[in-house]
Amino acid sequence: MAADARPNFSDLEAAAAGRHAVIAVAAAHDPEVLAAVRDAHDMFGTEAILFGQTARMDSLPAMAGITRIDTPDDETSAALAVEACRGGAASILMKGNLPTGTLMRAALARDTGLRSDGLLSHVMFYAPPRYGKLLVLTDGGLNPFPDLAQKKQILLNALTLMRRLGWTDINVSIVAAAEQVNPNIQSMVDAEWLAAQPDWAACSAHVIGPVGLDLAVSEAAAAAKHYTGEGAGKADLLLVPNYEVGNGIGKTLTWFGEAESAGLIVGATVPIVLVSRSDDHIAKRRSIALAMAASANDMEDNR
Amino acid sequence: MAADARPNFSDLEAAAAGRHAVIAVAAAHDPEVLAAVRDAHDMFGTEAILFGQTARMDSLPAMAGITRIDTPDDETSAALAVEACRGGAASILMKGNLPTGTLMRAALARDTGLRSDGLLSHVMFYAPPRYGKLLVLTDGGLNPFPDLAQKKQILLNALTLMRRLGWTDINVSIVAAAEQVNPNIQSMVDAEWLAAQPDWAACSAHVIGPVGLDLAVSEAAAAAKHYTGEGAGKADLLLVPNYEVGNGIGKTLTWFGEAESAGLIVGATVPIVLVSRSDDHIAKRRSIALAMAASANDMEDNR
Repeated sequence: MAADARPNFSDLEAAAAGRHAVIAVAAAHDPEVLAAVRDAHDMFGTEAILFGQTARMDSLPAMAGITRIDTPDDETSAALAVEACRGGAASILMKGNLPTGTLMRAALARDTGLRSDGLLSHVMFYAPPRYGKLLVLTDGGLNPFPDLAQKKQILLNALTLMRRLGWTDINVSIVAAAEQVNPNIQSMVDAEWLAAQPDWAACSAHVIGPVGLDLAVSEAAAAAKHYTGEGAGKADLLLVPNYEVGNGIGKTLTWFGEAESAGLIVGATVPIVLVSRSDDHIAKRRSIALAMAASANDMEDNR
Repeated sequence: MAADARPNFSDLEAAAAGRHAVIAVAAAHDPEVLAAVRDAHDMFGTEAILFGQTARMDSLPAMAGITRIDTPDDETSAALAVEACRGGAASILMKGNLPTGTLMRAALARDTGLRSDGLLSHVMFYAPPRYGKLLVLTDGGLNPFPDLAQKKQILLNALTLMRRLGWTDINVSIVAAAEQVNPNIQSMVDAEWLAAQPDWAACSAHVIGPVGLDLAVSEAAAAAKHYTGEGAGKADLLLVPNYEVGNGIGKTLTWFGEAESAGLIVGATVPIVLVSRSDDHIAKRRSIALAMAASANDMEDNR
């Protein structure tokens, strides 16, 4: 991969294959979760500690590096999986068949959780067939209505992750409904302020905004409207105003744009694989690959 | 078309061909606008009064029923086009090559505009190739952050238009990021209240919400998450929480879902064709067809 190229899902899975990682899965008793754990074991050599109802894990045969620990309920499963990450036995936390809230309460617990100094945020990767590269979106999941300081941290979190995964010269579009700033619309004011910050060159990013989605992802649309911001029409990363917008764009990409996806929560002491229960095992396996590349580089950074 | 079928763009254009209509176009000096006027004239017999720089209308040959009126600037062009609709010379207002704000200031002027008792709102029609029918979205354009009463009126406006255009048994999904109501998230509280109103059966509509876009448009997704609201997975109409969400979903449908589209503003004394300047003449012609069917039925209602 050339220095200025963008990785695709195959590149990211190939990078994961060279890493060592142990996933702690909370409530692992789910066929698609177990299939993803098995895929990751076979393809990347990933080890795993599976917390949950071990009697419901029969679809996964016994194999080296996979440990099962029986737990009485989701809360215990979540607490033990988080503790495995805190103690260093595992390097990735993964959501199985339990409510997101149950897992995140354990992960965010003040004294026993996985908080770092920063803000946790959600990053989704989409592969729209008609786009030719991955399109990353943040934050469509964890921070419903972030304020300006939170948006800045959300953007920094995504850029940090993308650089670890191999992106350089990242084109960021801060999405709004249009380009001309209406001072009564907070997302536009925020976008203009964020885009003007001097931080982004140091993150290997060009940041434009506010910008409508059309000008963010279509060079033809940007040319037609004479919009000339650097990277217009070829966004790598979309920063959305709030989770409703991110959820709407993301689900439209999935259901009408036929985009495959993978997702992560970043900003905690370990990456958290938090894909939807309705995602298939391929999406879950890809999310594990993203987490492995991110966490393995973490370890290298800390050497 | 069977009573319970949904019209597609071809049906709507066929219905327009039987109507009489005169369009008043503000700032008509634009090749795509003129091509749409010509298409509508040839296909539907539509007449037109073109306000603007007549020296820049050469791409349209002289033809019966098309009048050109030279105007010194956009403001005059908008004022005269609105006045043509007020006076009855025209039955549809159309935006040409001028800013939306200039046209809408003339259309909304208290004493000289086109206000009715109700709220004006924007309705977009999308034809996603993988959906099998039109998907209507409101309000992604005119009311940025509507309150609850405005959302109700926006929904009523769209249902009124769709019924005039031939829809019955309309499946409405009030979109949010998820289904379980979080009382801290206003769009969810609003959606739950709206869906529970008794008005909808009288409008030949089933209304569900709050509901994520996946469960609104995918029966498989609704089944996987055990969501059983009437019409789930086969929405005809999406009511979005605000224009940022509608803009994001709509532009994703266009740019990643390859959905053709058409759009209208309803709720004024005449329909207003207000497609984007970057839309091609086919989208503009289709929007004229929608406006013709809507305004012709208006006249019938008033007989």
